[in-house]
Amino acid sequence: MQTIDLNCDLGESFGNYKCGMDEEILPYITSANVACGFHASDPLVMQKTVRLAKENQVHIGAHPGFQDLVGFGRRNMSLPAEEITAIVVYQIGALHAFCAANDVTLQHVKPHGALYNMAVKDSAIADAICEGIAAVNPSLILLGPAKSQLVFSAKKYGLRAAREVFADRAYEEDGSLVARSKPGAVISNREEALARVIQMVKYGTVTAITGREIEVEADSVCIHGDNPAALAFAKSIRDALKAEGITPMPMDDVIACVK
Amino acid sequence: MQTIDLNCDLGESFGNYKCGMDEEILPYITSANVACGFHASDPLVMQKTVRLAKENQVHIGAHPGFQDLVGFGRRNMSLPAEEITAIVVYQIGALHAFCAANDVTLQHVKPHGALYNMAVKDSAIADAICEGIAAVNPSLILLGPAKSQLVFSAKKYGLRAAREVFADRAYEEDGSLVARSKPGAVISNREEALARVIQMVKYGTVTAITGREIEVEADSVCIHGDNPAALAFAKSIRDALKAEGITPMPMDDVIACVK
Amino acid sequence: MQTIDLNCDLGESFGNYKCGMDEEILPYITSANVACGFHASDPLVMQKTVRLAKENQVHIGAHPGFQDLVGFGRRNMSLPAEEITAIVVYQIGALHAFCAANDVTLQHVKPHGALYNMAVKDSAIADAICEGIAAVNPSLILLGPAKSQLVFSAKKYGLRAAREVFADRAYEEDGSLVARSKPGAVISNREEALARVIQMVKYGTVTAITGREIEVEADSVCIHGDNPAALAFAKSIRDALKAEGITPMPMDDVIACVK
Amino acid sequence: MQTIDLNCDLGESFGNYKCGMDEEILPYITSANVACGFHASDPLVMQKTVRLAKENQVHIGAHPGFQDLVGFGRRNMSLPAEEITAIVVYQIGALHAFCAANDVTLQHVKPHGALYNMAVKDSAIADAICEGIAAVNPSLILLGPAKSQLVFSAKKYGLRAAREVFADRAYEEDGSLVARSKPGAVISNREEALARVIQMVKYGTVTAITGREIEVEADSVCIHGDNPAALAFAKSIRDALKAEGITPMPMDDVIACVK
Repeated sequence: MQTIDLNCDLGESFGNYKCGMDEEILPYITSANVACGFHASDPLVMQKTVRLAKENQVHIGAHPGFQDLVGFGRRNMSLPAEEITAIVVYQIGALHAFCAANDVTLQHVKPHGALYNMAVKDSAIADAICEGIAAVNPSLILLGPAKSQLVFSAKKYGLRAAREVFADRAYEEDGSLVARSKPGAVISNREEALARVIQMVKYGTVTAITGREIEVEADSVCIHGDNPAALAFAKSIRDALKAEGITPMPMDDVIACVK
Repeated sequence: MQTIDLNCDLGESFGNYKCGMDEEILPYITSANVACGFHASDPLVMQKTVRLAKENQVHIGAHPGFQDLVGFGRRNMSLPAEEITAIVVYQIGALHAFCAANDVTLQHVKPHGALYNMAVKDSAIADAICEGIAAVNPSLILLGPAKSQLVFSAKKYGLRAAREVFADRAYEEDGSLVARSKPGAVISNREEALARVIQMVKYGTVTAITGREIEVEADSVCIHGDNPAALAFAKSIRDALKAEGITPMPMDDVIACVK
Repeated sequence: MQTIDLNCDLGESFGNYKCGMDEEILPYITSANVACGFHASDPLVMQKTVRLAKENQVHIGAHPGFQDLVGFGRRNMSLPAEEITAIVVYQIGALHAFCAANDVTLQHVKPHGALYNMAVKDSAIADAICEGIAAVNPSLILLGPAKSQLVFSAKKYGLRAAREVFADRAYEEDGSLVARSKPGAVISNREEALARVIQMVKYGTVTAITGREIEVEADSVCIHGDNPAALAFAKSIRDALKAEGITPMPMDDVIACVK
Repeated sequence: MQTIDLNCDLGESFGNYKCGMDEEILPYITSANVACGFHASDPLVMQKTVRLAKENQVHIGAHPGFQDLVGFGRRNMSLPAEEITAIVVYQIGALHAFCAANDVTLQHVKPHGALYNMAVKDSAIADAICEGIAAVNPSLILLGPAKSQLVFSAKKYGLRAAREVFADRAYEEDGSLVARSKPGAVISNREEALARVIQMVKYGTVTAITGREIEVEADSVCIHGDNPAALAFAKSIRDALKAEGITPMPMDDVIACVK
């Protein structure tokens, strides 16, 4: 049986501010990346999000980011490696406590925003993150793009890694994402995006922006759920995968199947 | 053998700001209440504090407070009960992660500042705190003053409680602390304070502000270590207790001896 | 000519989080209470809000609150009087700078949320606020409910005061608002609420919750604009007032007419 | 008469955290760069600092930084230009309000930490800062190093600029500071540093790290006052300048003399 994880950022509301359509996206996904209070969320939102994910049998991961609420963790910040390790440890711990309080297991860690983007390319940052994960709980899965420094670091620190692909993003020949600043970086045609997802998940290949077909390893597809269009697209992806006989499953099951 | 825990707030520095004399006070105490980033501290400070406490074989507790950095968690805030539970869960989890990363056990929880003071008298707040502790880890000890709502709530939620006494504070006949606004609330004479500690720990009694001798249960003595005078006094307390044959021990050992 | 100000909270978005329907409500109001970054908003939102208000010829006021972003400034906090003065000075200054940068005048100050509610009843808090306003710029108008400590303090500090009334709230016989916890505190019938606004603004009277008609002084009506229903109701209020020959005008014009 | 300004960062305490020796350094300086609550300080500290500076007849400048309290504004952050402008406007306004409340004039603006360092070399950031200053109040002086992008931008936006030199830093031949990472970047010999200050201020020259004598324009000397050694060195600088017949004066007087 072919399986795939569908992951989505969740629990990004904050205090009086609502963000995302968490209840609506949950039926379509298998793993949730839950914000931990640094770039978004607060303790009450975390409690509600963990409960909601549990009710929907969606597996839970920590989604640590830079401590930059006003910038939603999307702005590059230059932190010493030991501080990156510390903010990752802190945020994993905070979310883990809500998992413990709700009697669910913490499955994975996916860095957020600028921290994710920087770690994909910078091995020192990726190492700092993975060191933090391994120190807290070496059974946690690192979720990141295939062939990224994040995935390389995960192996170095003895962590399992799940590799995610993006429906709406173009790829370079080396398997990295085309920078958003470049033309063609975003696949806006929904049919094309769907076809690419199927190709990546079912056949492990994708057509790079140069036109050449490259190999790509997909344990998970990154889904968005912050607006009605994203929601509809998430449903399409799930339906299309199922129609191809690919079963959505949380990433710990997916990577267990693979090995 | 008579035993006593000596607890002290630790790890209250923040970023560029240094606060307290953590390295100097550690040799005199047996349990540290470690700030968790809401009223003081940050992830890097927490990492260093846990490591330092471990090196000194001092047991570690979480010291959660209100999210009020500028007010150092000392200002009353009116939060719904479920939010108090959530901020306690969050902070315990954050500190627990640094304990896990350093391979030490989290021993206890002592609320900080305004949260502590409000919970001492308000059973709804005390319940909200203890519900959070019990949800995350029911083997954690609640540290609070004897006969307080905090200790009553701990029992209600099935938690062990350690009861602390204060060297430099006067007591009402009901065993509660005399409010700081009242004359005589603070015992400034060091000899008198030392004598009172011995009396409380060794004989379980103290002379209330009214002059009547009352019973008081002491599992731990609250120590301060944020200035040289406090440091010297902490040393005096420890020395005086030892001279009386009372052995300083972390609170989990102390309360195990009691039962 | 009879005139009335229509005031509304504005600029309460924060970073990635959108809140309110600022562009839609602006055509219906004459004065905007602009959040200053403590309970909501950030520098970029303030810049955009001031520009937007200017384009709509809506006068601008500062809307200072407690430094409690996660609680949206709605939770009571116990601050020393001098700190309340300081947070008011700070926030007025921050907003004033955006007014200066956009070449508009800062017209008034309306405290937000818990700070407003506490100051309405507590003269020490009201004084602390008005002292801050008077210190920065004594030509600023204090906006608060009639007969409140806020308005009394304003006079004490030589400030002009504009008195606001609420369309959807019941009044006690002494002119204060019925506490939200009491039955009948909120007028949910829109027709009734509209009729009350006309009565308060045109005739200076309102039927208290006891049934007795009392006098009420109205320089401004508090409008909400954070959802489509509120928006429609705001339009109704404006239309109803105009139909009665009452001209909407910024509060500095309204109170100039009165005197 | 030859004159020179002596500037120092001030008011960097925060809530319960004390930082710096403000009262002790004030007698030696003529201009204070006062933190505005983003990288350090809070409203109460700002109020006290402005009052203290006024009592010492020290002129006041705003010292805006990145909103990064835990990093003390020392970590590079990538913000859009319009957001940099907005955070500068906000912070100038906040400090200006305390000046207004204390009846003193705001004299200048010196960006802090990472914002300063980035703006020295990056004209887009320097422009964003100067646009903010000019928008709020074009009579404010920009304080920055000679030949920096900050000073170039100031002229572009019609602002006066005061150029500062550093006693303890080596210079490249182009007049820029030698990066701290390079050997020889910091002049640790106090006598040598003093001699360099005199040479820079009196003769307008300095020996670059290459050994070549270069021209340097000095309107102000940057002083530190956060520890006893810095304090003693500040006194030495002031004494040495006076011994050479150079009169310490606030920068607005110094640059008025120059032109």
